[in-house]
Amino acid sequence: MQNEMRPPVIGVIGGMGPYAGLDFVQKIFGSTKAKKDQDHLNCVLVSLPGSVSDRTAFLLRNEGENPAAGMFESARRLHLAGASYAAVACNTAHAKRIFEPFCEAVKKELSGLVIVNMLESCAEFIKKERGGLSRIGLLATVGTHQSGVYGEYFRKEDGFTLLEPDAAGKENIHEAIYNEGFGIKSFSQPVTERARALVSGEINRLAEKGAQAVILGCTELPLAIPPGATSSIQLIDPGLIAARKLVSLAAPERLAE
Amino acid sequence: MQNEMRPPVIGVIGGMGPYAGLDFVQKIFGSTKAKKDQDHLNCVLVSLPGSVSDRTAFLLRNEGENPAAGMFESARRLHLAGASYAAVACNTAHAKRIFEPFCEAVKKELSGLVIVNMLESCAEFIKKERGGLSRIGLLATVGTHQSGVYGEYFRKEDGFTLLEPDAAGKENIHEAIYNEGFGIKSFSQPVTERARALVSGEINRLAEKGAQAVILGCTELPLAIPPGATSSIQLIDPGLIAARKLVSLAAPERLAE
Repeated sequence: MQNEMRPPVIGVIGGMGPYAGLDFVQKIFGSTKAKKDQDHLNCVLVSLPGSVSDRTAFLLRNEGENPAAGMFESARRLHLAGASYAAVACNTAHAKRIFEPFCEAVKKELSGLVIVNMLESCAEFIKKERGGLSRIGLLATVGTHQSGVYGEYFRKEDGFTLLEPDAAGKENIHEAIYNEGFGIKSFSQPVTERARALVSGEINRLAEKGAQAVILGCTELPLAIPPGATSSIQLIDPGLIAARKLVSLAAPERLAE
Repeated sequence: MQNEMRPPVIGVIGGMGPYAGLDFVQKIFGSTKAKKDQDHLNCVLVSLPGSVSDRTAFLLRNEGENPAAGMFESARRLHLAGASYAAVACNTAHAKRIFEPFCEAVKKELSGLVIVNMLESCAEFIKKERGGLSRIGLLATVGTHQSGVYGEYFRKEDGFTLLEPDAAGKENIHEAIYNEGFGIKSFSQPVTERARALVSGEINRLAEKGAQAVILGCTELPLAIPPGATSSIQLIDPGLIAARKLVSLAAPERLAE
């Protein structure tokens, strides 16, 4: 059977966790001007959760193989399926110890696949579109905090001051994500009230510390903020920013307002 | 970079529409026993909405090429990405004029890829798991109704009586799905109250006609029923049944209760 060539395919490396990957794809669809099915862009999601070691365990305790291996395996399958532009739907995976070997392998072995760096896109977005903001709060996993990955992109010399929760606050966010009894990775449909309350509490505490905006720096966290929810402070979702960048690379005329 | 072989990959042919494809993947995740990321199954979603002609327009007005071509192109990419079992996340696409040439091409050209037939799985499920039910209401697109696709699977000689809405009711459901001002294909995050009310109204009317259960026979319709919503009548979601079948084929021990 024949089928003519179509516009570029956007790829999503998911599985970290699986629902965060889906949420990322949903952000691509939501960032596309479309009134009927055929207006949407081509998209492939590869979710190989069992192949990608836990990012936090690797960064903090050197447990498991480098998650870069499973991310590359996902990228390889996206490449086979025809993807031209792809992003990794996981903040912690952007730590240099993981993301650099991943990008090097993609560059070397998967010709034509462009990886969009979610954190780099996020820092660029804040600089260009939200120029007045410099005191940025960060909510993330303990692995993301301790790896200092956000500090690599939100640098003091570029005018950013990153505010993080105190130790108890980081633990609260970590539990909201990972706790097997109520965390978002175990209960995302719907997110439990307990996880939601922990996330809201830490957003408010960062605002009290003087943050002008708060980055939801783990792809699970936006799942705890219902769409359209109001907050006392601007919330920044790196996943949404990366999704919009992918749409603008694949089909700039289709980027929703 | 090396990565050892992992369990089978489940494939989803999405894009019909894009959100229905995502919803289908979510049903696969939701049907899997998992307490952490790595417990979830491998899954690939291919969404090529611009390549798959509108199923209803093709069936009713012979508009566009046979959607089987775009479905096959999606299956080809799933096959390249390593999928072993796949389903098509669209009811109307299961009409014989579309689904048969699609399956023939897959069988001929994509060795090792097993297609799970969502409607066949649904009829089997009702017969085996809900043996007492015979008067089954059907909500679907006009294309699904007129193509008679459900009648091909829910046959009188197998003890089924299919109840459909009257002409006005079918039009209501069609509008709830397709209307560009309030329909689910245009507004699914969230579904509009108007679309939701039209769907609920027709469910109630089928119950009044004597239906013992109602099949939500278009992948957009479950989006209008919030998870856990109560209904006066048993609602059957063929997508959920097919998702559970895919999980049970790929990893029977992981099928959630």
